[in-house]
Amino acid sequence: MVTKIDAGVTAPKGFKAGGHTAGFKPSGLPDLAIVLAEDNKAVTAAALFTKNLLRAAPVDISEQNLKQSDGMVAAVVLNSGQANAGTGTDGFADGIKTTELAAEAIGCQPSDVFICSTGVIGKRFDINLMREALPKVVSQASSTVESGTAAATAIMTTDLKLKQIAFQDEVAGSTVTAGGMCKGSGMIHPDMATMLGVVTCDADVEKGLLHKMLKRAVDRSFNAITVDGDTSTNDVVCAMCSGASKVVVQVENSPEAKAVESLLTATCIHLAKSIARDGEGATVLVEVQVSGANTEADARAIAKSIASSSLVKAAIFGRDPNWGRIAAAAGMAGAKFDINDLEIRLGDYLLMSKGNPVPFDAKDASLYMKGKSEAAPEDYLTEHDTVAITVKVGNGEGSGVAWGCDLSYKYVEINAEYTT
Amino acid sequence: MVTKIDAGVTAPKGFKAGGHTAGFKPSGLPDLAIVLAEDNKAVTAAALFTKNLLRAAPVDISEQNLKQSDGMVAAVVLNSGQANAGTGTDGFADGIKTTELAAEAIGCQPSDVFICSTGVIGKRFDINLMREALPKVVSQASSTVESGTAAATAIMTTDLKLKQIAFQDEVAGSTVTAGGMCKGSGMIHPDMATMLGVVTCDADVEKGLLHKMLKRAVDRSFNAITVDGDTSTNDVVCAMCSGASKVVVQVENSPEAKAVESLLTATCIHLAKSIARDGEGATVLVEVQVSGANTEADARAIAKSIASSSLVKAAIFGRDPNWGRIAAAAGMAGAKFDINDLEIRLGDYLLMSKGNPVPFDAKDASLYMKGKSEAAPEDYLTEHDTVAITVKVGNGEGSGVAWGCDLSYKYVEINAEYTT
Repeated sequence: MVTKIDAGVTAPKGFKAGGHTAGFKPSGLPDLAIVLAEDNKAVTAAALFTKNLLRAAPVDISEQNLKQSDGMVAAVVLNSGQANAGTGTDGFADGIKTTELAAEAIGCQPSDVFICSTGVIGKRFDINLMREALPKVVSQASSTVESGTAAATAIMTTDLKLKQIAFQDEVAGSTVTAGGMCKGSGMIHPDMATMLGVVTCDADVEKGLLHKMLKRAVDRSFNAITVDGDTSTNDVVCAMCSGASKVVVQVENSPEAKAVESLLTATCIHLAKSIARDGEGATVLVEVQVSGANTEADARAIAKSIASSSLVKAAIFGRDPNWGRIAAAAGMAGAKFDINDLEIRLGDYLLMSKGNPVPFDAKDASLYMKGKSEAAPEDYLTEHDTVAITVKVGNGEGSGVAWGCDLSYKYVEINAEYTT
Repeated sequence: MVTKIDAGVTAPKGFKAGGHTAGFKPSGLPDLAIVLAEDNKAVTAAALFTKNLLRAAPVDISEQNLKQSDGMVAAVVLNSGQANAGTGTDGFADGIKTTELAAEAIGCQPSDVFICSTGVIGKRFDINLMREALPKVVSQASSTVESGTAAATAIMTTDLKLKQIAFQDEVAGSTVTAGGMCKGSGMIHPDMATMLGVVTCDADVEKGLLHKMLKRAVDRSFNAITVDGDTSTNDVVCAMCSGASKVVVQVENSPEAKAVESLLTATCIHLAKSIARDGEGATVLVEVQVSGANTEADARAIAKSIASSSLVKAAIFGRDPNWGRIAAAAGMAGAKFDINDLEIRLGDYLLMSKGNPVPFDAKDASLYMKGKSEAAPEDYLTEHDTVAITVKVGNGEGSGVAWGCDLSYKYVEINAEYTT
């Protein structure tokens, strides 16, 4: 049975983590995090990188390192406050120097170091801050829950809440745990956001298979959320497998592979939802479930089109059960379906059937949405704040989910009132 | 020499128009418009329809009629207040009845009637209002500028300003005029918007060529604007050519064809820009020019990605010369270019060169944007309200333009506070 644990990257065996204040943030808040293999030796890893052409130096460097080390990572070093994007060759050199300093502190090769940055773009960071802080964050790293939390705290930028989770299951007679942390898509300070995610797991997963699993998990989670549709220069998700559970996973579709992929996927989905929930100015989480499409990709495209429509998002903020906007957003997704099959539900309210609107209690449906925003969950482990939109587009096998948030005055305020 | 004329669909010879209050709008404002060939006989026409799967009845009916009449249209009948979308088979019957009533009043075939609707979706309109008003709007139609203005007024929904224009040029020794009217993408009342456009021209253009010309003109105009990225159930652009100028255009790339296409394109661009300028809550028009791309399509994709980025739009509303958001939006357009070639200008301010930020006076650049919003043009014939973003992505031949507007509190208010 899969169990959810209120912990993060240190929940799986074989990992240490830590957070530190290096001085990249003017606020003096923690801004340097590390996730480290317990014996400081490189473990199996996989990663996915932003598709934006404008890539920050750490993205290029980490992709290069992962190739050079043949998919092995000893540590992920993440800093907030400075994105090291748009910083040219000097910024690239700063990133390389960071991997060297980290490798020295850890006792590994620079190519075993995976670096991530988030924060202000266009400015170089002070490499001396890194030089001073890296040995400290490495030596203080530990496998406690608190250390995982410290790491998750140190990568926050405009996130209102820290984002971490872990899931556990019995696999082949042993306990396997996946854990993760991420920071969200708040693109405020000052230029653009970044979605950084680190996932750890104590299964021993074959490298190529791990990459496939991570790709599928990310498609179903981080790639299924939308805050404002923009992608960033620094987006990256990195997964590390310690193998400390002694559970070996080598064959795709084996029971072990399926169980471990489920844990990775659950972790990524929880983290992704926490990002959507914490979208700038968001008052509710919006979950769009689409079924009956020709393919899974079609279903996800329709779900994402609905979740990212400014008109739908504004209607949800206004607590307006606006089936017309949902239907139009479904219709513009680029996926083919027969409009006469379209069925739309908002929570338990049937708004549209066979492509036509049906009578429903609009006031009650509005109160349903209002109730979600008032739930104001302090606890990310609950889902009382979720506005559910369920769409059926036919009788196909394809189904998919997307998550988003509403569009509020606060979003405009956050993104307009900041001046670079 | 191309001359801009402050008039609309009646500027070209051979057309009548009119506007009327039929009663579709609770406000009692004009809500029925007609554009009619002067002798009530069908003329050459071409049209482009919404790509949204959710299509209103009039869209299906007009596409069908245009096929049945082999590309001939005697009149475009447009009503505002009721979109006749999401109205099922009853709504379809209402649309068919409208074409019959119009044909009777005009003295043509129902298949020669092109119908467009915009307004509330999901509710049937009262066909009796149509029955009463159609003979009146037909009999009162005239070729004066005022009648063109009356038609443009009657199609307004949430538009703050009426949108019409005409352009004139000497072609093959005669004066050829193109004129047009449209209504904008205000998606407020209550569900979604619609972009309706009617373009008239007094050249005698061969049917197939007219369709090609209109397609290209629309790609460079209506398809190059973005208010919130959503498409509608009712979007349509229809062009009619009376031939009254006696200028015959039959051969693509002939001097006459080029001259007439320029007039159609200028008309469509002016109308499209007036829609972006009147976007919900907009305080400025944003024009994004991209050059140096591999293809024209790539350039337009990059321009549109920038113009539709919520982050860029919010930054412009905040008068923040945020090159990072512009660069990231360019990078996520899906078009390939070398990031080291990226050059970004805001007005005359160079913000980024060779892929790196350059020093500029941020305060002055902000004042530049502020000045545009304060221009508050009462006159759409001027362009004092345009924030210009100029982007170079390499040395390719491809260039393209997109227009949009900023994202303000007012947008959220308009779209959230309306309740269906």
